[in-house]
Amino acid sequence: MDQHYSSELFEQAVDEFSKLPGIGRRSAVRLVLHLLRMDVGSVDRFASSLTRLRHDVCYCRVCHNISDTDVCQLCSNPLRDRSTVCVVENIQDVMAIEATGQYHGLYHVLGGVISPMDGIGPNDLQIQSLVERVEAGGVNEVILALSSTMEGDTTNFYISRRLAGCTGLRLTMLARGLSVNDELQYTDEVTLGRSLQNRVEFSVGV
Amino acid sequence: MDQHYSSELFEQAVDEFSKLPGIGRRSAVRLVLHLLRMDVGSVDRFASSLTRLRHDVCYCRVCHNISDTDVCQLCSNPLRDRSTVCVVENIQDVMAIEATGQYHGLYHVLGGVISPMDGIGPNDLQIQSLVERVEAGGVNEVILALSSTMEGDTTNFYISRRLAGCTGLRLTMLARGLSVNDELQYTDEVTLGRSLQNRVEFSVGV
Repeated sequence: MDQHYSSELFEQAVDEFSKLPGIGRRSAVRLVLHLLRMDVGSVDRFASSLTRLRHDVCYCRVCHNISDTDVCQLCSNPLRDRSTVCVVENIQDVMAIEATGQYHGLYHVLGGVISPMDGIGPNDLQIQSLVERVEAGGVNEVILALSSTMEGDTTNFYISRRLAGCTGLRLTMLARGLSVNDELQYTDEVTLGRSLQNRVEFSVGV
Repeated sequence: MDQHYSSELFEQAVDEFSKLPGIGRRSAVRLVLHLLRMDVGSVDRFASSLTRLRHDVCYCRVCHNISDTDVCQLCSNPLRDRSTVCVVENIQDVMAIEATGQYHGLYHVLGGVISPMDGIGPNDLQIQSLVERVEAGGVNEVILALSSTMEGDTTNFYISRRLAGCTGLRLTMLARGLSVNDELQYTDEVTLGRSLQNRVEFSVGV
């Protein structure tokens, strides 16, 4: 369906928007029409923020999270607890944990999980740099916060073996159990079994 | 919920995307992550197409549709039938009619419809320029292709009065009736009544 617009520039902008994930041609037209109504300064600001994003964002030398500088804002923040490192798959996971407001330590972004099916081995991930980071000292606890999938479990296991030599290091993983507001009867049996195995002392207020 | 990202540039890009209609914060994050994975050239092309769109798109002097030049591609196309002018509310309507592939005349974009509730009178729309265009000669038919709402009907009526002096001009409007694939029992009574009133001769192949 080769639709003809009266403006090439309009057509190009629609094409560009349509390339983004989850944006169809109809939405693209709607967005471009909106841009046409926005004032020039706002559109320029939008466009330049995209260019600067792609050109200037780099990856933190320490934790491999996205950053504007050699070492990211989280790693260089003196208020964060430097003795705890939370290992995650990707930068979205950092955002998800930050959104809880419950974690004040540092992160380590692996860039994925071990997945032989997809050809991803330990050397494709930031595991060696994690080991070096822990061996350099100052880290008391490593929290494994990977997805609770087969691949996540494999990666957890691999990392635990690599860090086995670090005496005094506490290695923890995220609790598995019922989601908050889950109804028992609809919880899958594996999760329910795990939540029974890992039951904790009941105390008022928890 | 003031979420903190490890990159200011990332945050800015997410903010800018969130300002667009229908794009929430979650979608904005997803889009920005996608841009980070795109190659530099593509992102630059995307950004520059937005800037050029906003700076260089203008409105056609003749039909007021969006255009890259003083007179748009449709108005300057020698293959289009210059004796027929289709009056529409906005540029989306031009696209909708072009998408049918059934119309080969020219357009006239009013920029809205008469709506006293919204404070839009005839002088806020491109009606005077339509009258001048028709009076200049060469136009045999004006098709009123406005929405079938109270405001659309009011605007149709106003335009028909303004063009009443043009002798030999055929003034038509879009047919109202059942949508293709509509089931009779679910069609509203006003539309059904109209489709009965405006019934046409049955012929095989229509």
